[in-house]
Amino acid sequence: MIENVFYQAETQGHFEYYALGDLRLESGETLRDAKLAYRTFGTLNADKTNAILVTTWFSGTGKIMEDVYVGEDHALDPNKYFIIVVDQLGSGVSTSPQNNPAPQTMGKFPKLSIGDDVQAQHRLLTELFKISKLVLIVGGSMGGQQVYEWAVTYPDMVERAAPIAATARISLHQKVFVQALEEAIKSDPAWQNGWYSCGLEVREGMDRLAKIVATLGWSHEFYQEKRWASVLGMSSLDDFINGVMKAYFEPMDPNVLLCEMHKWQRADVGRHTDGNLAEALARITAKTCVMPISHDLFFPPDECEQDCKLIAGATVRVIETKEGHMGLNGFEPNYMAQVDSHLKDLLNA
Amino acid sequence: MIENVFYQAETQGHFEYYALGDLRLESGETLRDAKLAYRTFGTLNADKTNAILVTTWFSGTGKIMEDVYVGEDHALDPNKYFIIVVDQLGSGVSTSPQNNPAPQTMGKFPKLSIGDDVQAQHRLLTELFKISKLVLIVGGSMGGQQVYEWAVTYPDMVERAAPIAATARISLHQKVFVQALEEAIKSDPAWQNGWYSCGLEVREGMDRLAKIVATLGWSHEFYQEKRWASVLGMSSLDDFINGVMKAYFEPMDPNVLLCEMHKWQRADVGRHTDGNLAEALARITAKTCVMPISHDLFFPPDECEQDCKLIAGATVRVIETKEGHMGLNGFEPNYMAQVDSHLKDLLNA
Repeated sequence: MIENVFYQAETQGHFEYYALGDLRLESGETLRDAKLAYRTFGTLNADKTNAILVTTWFSGTGKIMEDVYVGEDHALDPNKYFIIVVDQLGSGVSTSPQNNPAPQTMGKFPKLSIGDDVQAQHRLLTELFKISKLVLIVGGSMGGQQVYEWAVTYPDMVERAAPIAATARISLHQKVFVQALEEAIKSDPAWQNGWYSCGLEVREGMDRLAKIVATLGWSHEFYQEKRWASVLGMSSLDDFINGVMKAYFEPMDPNVLLCEMHKWQRADVGRHTDGNLAEALARITAKTCVMPISHDLFFPPDECEQDCKLIAGATVRVIETKEGHMGLNGFEPNYMAQVDSHLKDLLNA
Repeated sequence: MIENVFYQAETQGHFEYYALGDLRLESGETLRDAKLAYRTFGTLNADKTNAILVTTWFSGTGKIMEDVYVGEDHALDPNKYFIIVVDQLGSGVSTSPQNNPAPQTMGKFPKLSIGDDVQAQHRLLTELFKISKLVLIVGGSMGGQQVYEWAVTYPDMVERAAPIAATARISLHQKVFVQALEEAIKSDPAWQNGWYSCGLEVREGMDRLAKIVATLGWSHEFYQEKRWASVLGMSSLDDFINGVMKAYFEPMDPNVLLCEMHKWQRADVGRHTDGNLAEALARITAKTCVMPISHDLFFPPDECEQDCKLIAGATVRVIETKEGHMGLNGFEPNYMAQVDSHLKDLLNA
């Protein structure tokens, strides 16, 4: 275990833990004494019909979802809904490589899947809150992978689904990209197969990861227009790479990112149907709004739209933002305005 | 020095060397006893008005240009033209880190620029062949960067210019990408600041580079449609990554790739005009055909078209190929058919 304040309340704000006990994983292994981190906003009504689940993306935690997506001025309005923001397993906040005791710690933390996240979240909702219907489940990127997994696995429970900047099956292109990110960390001798004594020791590998993320995480137009200056207020390309990209990953835990990347590159709802994606997506009964980001080089809009065509009654709403995939962080006011508009339409449908 | 048969006639086919003697570099350093590798096809006519110069790209040598771009069945027809294919400096074949003797060898090989290439090539043409006009200069990727440098530096000498899949100034996006490639090699402890005893020792870093190249070198559509199977005949994604990408780079020299990447990320004809790209491109008098590749994630067509707008009378002809940037290698018959058609139109203009 490693004491990393980045993943604690001091940095993450207030959250709760739900004790899952032993969680049988998709791989067959058991994650012992697992804990799921969550935070709620608003009040669950008497008949439990106003719950919304919000999931997290790679490297993200509940805090960014709280800060950017939830609030009175957003579609995810705590005055109307009971909003549960849940940290994915292995995120650093929920049970994760760096905060779990031996023997399932660090380099020996079990491999997880997006399916494991959904099982854990399902237990939180049904066991703790006795919720049997979700008004909406929404999340971006890996959070969107969880949305698809939910909608396919528990169709009767999900009334509406909004996967943002995500596909139901990882593309082969993105798989190669995520492997390149993994290798950036694993090639750092300081990583030591996961047995470093402090995440900062793996700084070189993490810095390399940050630079590779920079190549597909933002769009060509972001660089063409030097939007790191106009949108992020950075003074130069180097200032952006050092002050935004490297600084973003620096406080994080390398094994946490690797744990998430293992899940990310294997996300595929076709697991449930012998690899048949169409058959898996045909199981979805949720009213689904597929929301790609216009300039996304991870999950290009046309790949998201291909999923949409396989979901009965689903609609596509493209979010226009030149930040590309990183637009998810809501750097531009116009980004959240579009997300809120699309989510309100979906919630009113 | 390292004996690497990949860069010798046994692998590269027949080529000649032109002895440049001491080459004063743009950086102020001098590359001593420099040699430029070239191969010619066809016959220079009496008034020396049928010469075409063909340049090389990153990791490429004269051989791929000979094999794919030159021949009776191509626009670059040796029955009509005297075609000079020249290896860029630091390519492994021309004077390069691995084939140059001490003291300018390996980790001490001087840093080069695209401008140095053009100076060396200018000397070859004027000193050896006494050529004062080029019917055409054509090259792809870094070869296209050399085309732009030629057209801006020697406008009176270049009658026609065809930069394929290239821009006149490296984009900031691509600069970050190339830095990520550099770091893949330099982070391998076996690289030893350039003082390995055999390129294969740096296999881990080279393999990482190969995987990162795979993310932007090919297009999303290439992966979506599994064109590594239909176009390249590979049996799986892993077979493609191992059998094409890693196998391609494995015989190459790490310092050679680093030497070229140093040039690649600094290519900018605006160097000649205090950073003013428009002013630099206004110097071009060559009839110019800008030829982007439709699915190119390195040099997206819109970035190439922005250059075109700054060149008097220039035209854009987009080459449609879902291979993206790697399409340059001519995997698809339809690729060369388009290149030949566009080049013939340009040569007839």
